[in-house]
Amino acid sequence: ARGYNITLLPGDGIGPEVVAVAKDALSVAGSKEGFELRFQEMLMGGAALDAVGVPLPDETLAAARKSDAILLGAIGGYKWDNNEKHLKPETGLLSIRAGLGVFANLRPATVLPQLVDASTLKKEVAEGVDIMVVRELTGGIYFGKPRGFGTNDKGEEIGFNTELYAVSEIDRIARVAFEVARKRGGKLCSVDKANVLEASMLWRKRVSAIASEYPDVELSHMYVDNAAMQLVRNPKQFDTIVTNNIFGDILSDEASMITGSIGMLPSASVGESGPGLFEPIHGSAPDIAGQDKANPLATILSAAMLLKYGLGLESAAKRIELGTYILLARHWLDASEWERKS
Amino acid sequence: ARGYNITLLPGDGIGPEVVAVAKDALSVAGSKEGFELRFQEMLMGGAALDAVGVPLPDETLAAARKSDAILLGAIGGYKWDNNEKHLKPETGLLSIRAGLGVFANLRPATVLPQLVDASTLKKEVAEGVDIMVVRELTGGIYFGKPRGFGTNDKGEEIGFNTELYAVSEIDRIARVAFEVARKRGGKLCSVDKANVLEASMLWRKRVSAIASEYPDVELSHMYVDNAAMQLVRNPKQFDTIVTNNIFGDILSDEASMITGSIGMLPSASVGESGPGLFEPIHGSAPDIAGQDKANPLATILSAAMLLKYGLGLESAAKRIELGTYILLARHWLDASEWERKS
Ligand SMILES: CC(C)[C@H](C(=O)O)[C@@H](O)C(=O)O
Ligand SMILES: CC(C)[C@H](C(=O)O)[C@@H](O)C(=O)O
Repeated sequence: ARGYNITLLPGDGIGPEVVAVAKDALSVAGSKEGFELRFQEMLMGGAALDAVGVPLPDETLAAARKSDAILLGAIGGYKWDNNEKHLKPETGLLSIRAGLGVFANLRPATVLPQLVDASTLKKEVAEGVDIMVVRELTGGIYFGKPRGFGTNDKGEEIGFNTELYAVSEIDRIARVAFEVARKRGGKLCSVDKANVLEASMLWRKRVSAIASEYPDVELSHMYVDNAAMQLVRNPKQFDTIVTNNIFGDILSDEASMITGSIGMLPSASVGESGPGLFEPIHGSAPDIAGQDKANPLATILSAAMLLKYGLGLESAAKRIELGTYILLARHWLDASEWERKS
Repeated sequence: ARGYNITLLPGDGIGPEVVAVAKDALSVAGSKEGFELRFQEMLMGGAALDAVGVPLPDETLAAARKSDAILLGAIGGYKWDNNEKHLKPETGLLSIRAGLGVFANLRPATVLPQLVDASTLKKEVAEGVDIMVVRELTGGIYFGKPRGFGTNDKGEEIGFNTELYAVSEIDRIARVAFEVARKRGGKLCSVDKANVLEASMLWRKRVSAIASEYPDVELSHMYVDNAAMQLVRNPKQFDTIVTNNIFGDILSDEASMITGSIGMLPSASVGESGPGLFEPIHGSAPDIAGQDKANPLATILSAAMLLKYGLGLESAAKRIELGTYILLARHWLDASEWERKS
């Protein structure tokens, strides 16, 4: 039987619980479809900090790189919130994204018919929403240099970061986004702040240039402040959105909350080659960790994305997706229960 | 009679229409309350570009500085969207903010009982929302240097900007926000991305330090991605929000759309001393300009903020506010009409 090596990064808070369930789902899918999954669990985030003093141990990155795909639970928690930057769980997450070169982060925000009432938006606004946010993940202000602390010419302390994009970084994420849009509704909205920021002006110029390779995709541009409004006003106008790292962080979370089902939403982070990183978009929810209250569906659906986008195993992925939807239909969980658990 | 000099900057699109109505409202309030307003109309934005080739003529800034308060309509339009940066209407807006030193931008997002149905959020989520976003307006990535275009070590074109805050910039906006929160519900939520950005780490540190001067205000911190979600999930949890320039741009627009009444929302930009700048939060809406369709209420309410925060004329401000609400109650405009007009 074919075999694949999966790195599991349970992480912090509810991470271990939800990863354990998703691992079982993967195993079942494998045995039904006739392939073998070999799992290796590694330390990351706060768990790694507590055990070995760094948020991303070298062995974790090395194991992840050698594997065929990586499934991550969640990282972070109050406990480490005041740590210095290099000792934050988040820094481990950023390091593994950079270390794996997974520059394209796909974040679906889909309103399932069964869960439309979970949205705080009116039913007629929320129903049918099906957005894919393609977020640039290894560049921009998250990684730009120079960054740090210093002193200005008045002798005051300053903190600074650099938002920076190079043509090749924009071109490659644009191509991923056009490919995604082509397979979806054929509409791509590129979000930037090109009326103010030079980094966004270059972004807009390059996305427009790449558009000529995809004449079948309809490209539009929107300023980020307007996008934040339009997601609330009429989310159905969006099909695929492409944007930079920080705007993607903000807008994908806003979009996911619009669905009302944040406990349901997976994500995939992929690069040019090498293994992809798959994780639920929700956080580590330290408040409910260890109480068997966490909703594992976002992680299970992330496992489905792992099979589909990471290993090319579409029918196994479908198996997991369908299983999830059947379970959902069976339980017909009410909105408040979903909200509480995610 | 007391007299005040008001600079009017009608700007572009629907700007001139809405400013004309607000000017009348100001004159009426003045004559009823026994003070005189002297108006001087100056060029700004696309209108200035077309007339004299720059988005903020020196005479405009000089006149604004000498006046007691400034009322702005709106700037921008498709026509100038592809201009180079120094020839964009938006650059004129940024220059006047910087030139006047108006570092604190107050943006209320209030759901009026008459207009709760205009929100796309469910009634029980939207009703009672009353948020004030205090946005830092003259620092951060909008103004940070270095910025521009260049070449990286691979010979590729890059675009870059600098997010930068100094202690004094954070301290002064924090104090404004604590003062505002103290006069409102006594709760201040500071929004940042301190788990990733050094500029945000300094922000969080200083806001926490300034909190000791305001023991009566309850301070909390929230990451910007979470704030974008929470505004959708449960906007009523917020009283006063303080955040940096770019996050404030995004979140204040999101918050305003949550009210559903963006055609109703004013804003005030004030500094340590000198005249304040007052403007509706909506844009120039070039599509409906000149058709007598623009909703002037946001500009009228901006004029009320001008009287209250700019000139200290509280009872005149109340007169305009009440007039607006009475008008609103009379017409009981329906949601779709409001949306269309704003
Ligand atoms: C935890 C944090 C560093 C991370 C990010 O900002 O990318 C998270 O918010 C996410 O979106 O995956
Ligand atoms: C027009 C633009 C430069 C401006 C900004 O980003 O500040 C606008 O969006 C606003 O919020 O006033």
